[in-house]
Amino acid sequence: MKITKPTLLVDEQKVRKNVRMMLEKAKSNGAELRPHFKTHHSADIAAWLREEGVTKATVSSVDMAKYFAKAGWDDITIAFPYNPLEAEEVEQLAKQITLNVTIVSKEALVHLNQHVKAPINYFIKVDVGTHRTGILPELTDEIGHIAQSLNSEHKLVGLLAHAGHTYQPMTKEKAEKVFSESIKAFDEVKSIVGKEDLIISYGDTPSCSLLDDFAGVNELRPGNFVFYDIMQQYFNSCSLEEIAVCMACPVVAIHADRNEVVVFGGAVHFSKDFIAPDGNRSFGTVVQLSETGWDSEPIAHVDRLSQEHGIIKASDELIKSLKIGDLVGILPVHSCLTADLQGYYVSLAGQRLNKFNKADV
Amino acid sequence: MKITKPTLLVDEQKVRKNVRMMLEKAKSNGAELRPHFKTHHSADIAAWLREEGVTKATVSSVDMAKYFAKAGWDDITIAFPYNPLEAEEVEQLAKQITLNVTIVSKEALVHLNQHVKAPINYFIKVDVGTHRTGILPELTDEIGHIAQSLNSEHKLVGLLAHAGHTYQPMTKEKAEKVFSESIKAFDEVKSIVGKEDLIISYGDTPSCSLLDDFAGVNELRPGNFVFYDIMQQYFNSCSLEEIAVCMACPVVAIHADRNEVVVFGGAVHFSKDFIAPDGNRSFGTVVQLSETGWDSEPIAHVDRLSQEHGIIKASDELIKSLKIGDLVGILPVHSCLTADLQGYYVSLAGQRLNKFNKADV
Repeated sequence: MKITKPTLLVDEQKVRKNVRMMLEKAKSNGAELRPHFKTHHSADIAAWLREEGVTKATVSSVDMAKYFAKAGWDDITIAFPYNPLEAEEVEQLAKQITLNVTIVSKEALVHLNQHVKAPINYFIKVDVGTHRTGILPELTDEIGHIAQSLNSEHKLVGLLAHAGHTYQPMTKEKAEKVFSESIKAFDEVKSIVGKEDLIISYGDTPSCSLLDDFAGVNELRPGNFVFYDIMQQYFNSCSLEEIAVCMACPVVAIHADRNEVVVFGGAVHFSKDFIAPDGNRSFGTVVQLSETGWDSEPIAHVDRLSQEHGIIKASDELIKSLKIGDLVGILPVHSCLTADLQGYYVSLAGQRLNKFNKADV
Repeated sequence: MKITKPTLLVDEQKVRKNVRMMLEKAKSNGAELRPHFKTHHSADIAAWLREEGVTKATVSSVDMAKYFAKAGWDDITIAFPYNPLEAEEVEQLAKQITLNVTIVSKEALVHLNQHVKAPINYFIKVDVGTHRTGILPELTDEIGHIAQSLNSEHKLVGLLAHAGHTYQPMTKEKAEKVFSESIKAFDEVKSIVGKEDLIISYGDTPSCSLLDDFAGVNELRPGNFVFYDIMQQYFNSCSLEEIAVCMACPVVAIHADRNEVVVFGGAVHFSKDFIAPDGNRSFGTVVQLSETGWDSEPIAHVDRLSQEHGIIKASDELIKSLKIGDLVGILPVHSCLTADLQGYYVSLAGQRLNKFNKADV
């Protein structure tokens, strides 16, 4: 496959290695790995995960659950608050597969009980300190109400948390602190609910990457680790070599006078997420493409993005080595959002890999 | 059509009104309107523009040009630097329609002359001060080389600029200054090229919205004005009432203790673009949906976004009025990127409007 425009390359071997590493970590903790598929959004890539031993999936929308159910995944958790407006679709899906939904309020559980008849497993989402959503352990009345609403049709199977406050430059010590606070929060909620056999589901990529000991946890639910990215490398979750996706971008203009290279590759390919380690924003790390993939050594950074333009700040040496029509590689800042923006991926073997298509729903 | 998940609503009457306003402005200046279709990416919406009198289009990629050519648009400018790697596709397209490409270096023109045989019109892109790409008027040698490379197969039809440095809070006076500097730059390049009958093509949404007098310009090329958005309103390009798109988002959690409402509607629906007028980021303006569309009066702001979650900072009053399963409207910060993220639009009449699909290429 000849690359002529921005194309997200996936290194299958790196993906498989990342998955094996995380499977091993889960296993050594006696936990299950239920990776979040919101990073790759792809049945083709999910098939690699299945070959490595993954059997359960996490997704973040009902549409995504339907897509993966169609691809043969029969045990899926929607790790996004139950949306009353999609009750009918949840009902349909629950008739086909083992469907686990996420409850963040008693109102949501009341709605689920009243509007969905097919059997559902549900998790209570616990706010372990991120304050995005979920139930705070100190809201004992709310948790008590949920516990009272337990009925026989739908089954409370566990407690789930996403420690999103690890999304910053991390150390193992900091991640351990967040983890022990999370376990404390789980224990508090568990004691109020008064049910012992609950699955404790935990999983953000920084914690799952930095920690080895997950005592008290039954399920790990990271997503990003499948690809990793520059943001995760900045958080210390991974090395540059572990990043499994790279955008091939054509050089379309060179402005030697201001040390800038313009590539075809902009916000509609990468998203506008950035890191700013020293106050200077970077929208991607430029690397050299090779016959066998790419060399992970950074050669420049993407300074800014508009809709289709990417502007690279480049050394004199890099400027001299490039001409228009060349391809450069760019490691994305946030692979989940970058992946979401693609129509498809291309493997290093030149194969097109299909993914969830927003126009198909 | 029942709305159950994040859905970008388009108000057809507002779109048509915005288009008529800009057509009128072009006409009163004796100029043509060649709107940039990178905002809506939709053949269905482009059909409304055609009904209003638009006959020529601007796009930002070869794929987008192919999509609109298929929808019957036969005079298209690709306002993105000519990409040597897509020479073959440019050739194919030039056989079917009047295709105008953008040249930003002598190397690009040399490549075009050597690799594309079908007749092409081309514009030289002039850097009028944005410093994204384009040729600076002071690069007289470069411009001279391009002028010498003029050959009979491909035709230099004009000079094109995008004054992207108007993308900030603007006044008419500031936009006038940018405009007069741009005209000066055009004149300088024109005198070096030594060709009189050149189309002068100008067009960013802030300039085209704030200015009335475009003396010296033959073609206006704004894009965003079709929808407008919160960023353009912040730049003073439009009023809130002129914004023609609004995302309907389901409320999925309410955290009264911290005055936050969580909606289904995140970075994969809106993009991560934001404005920060007083240092505080806003990722969208919350409005009330109504029977006939939405009320443009802001009732809250989107404080942060993750992949599918939107977090709204809400007053006690708003919190009290909402329950999970309600829909709120969110005016997007950057409608071009928001539109790019959709699988389709829905009109206020409940009709699904199709758009360019990245998986189709």
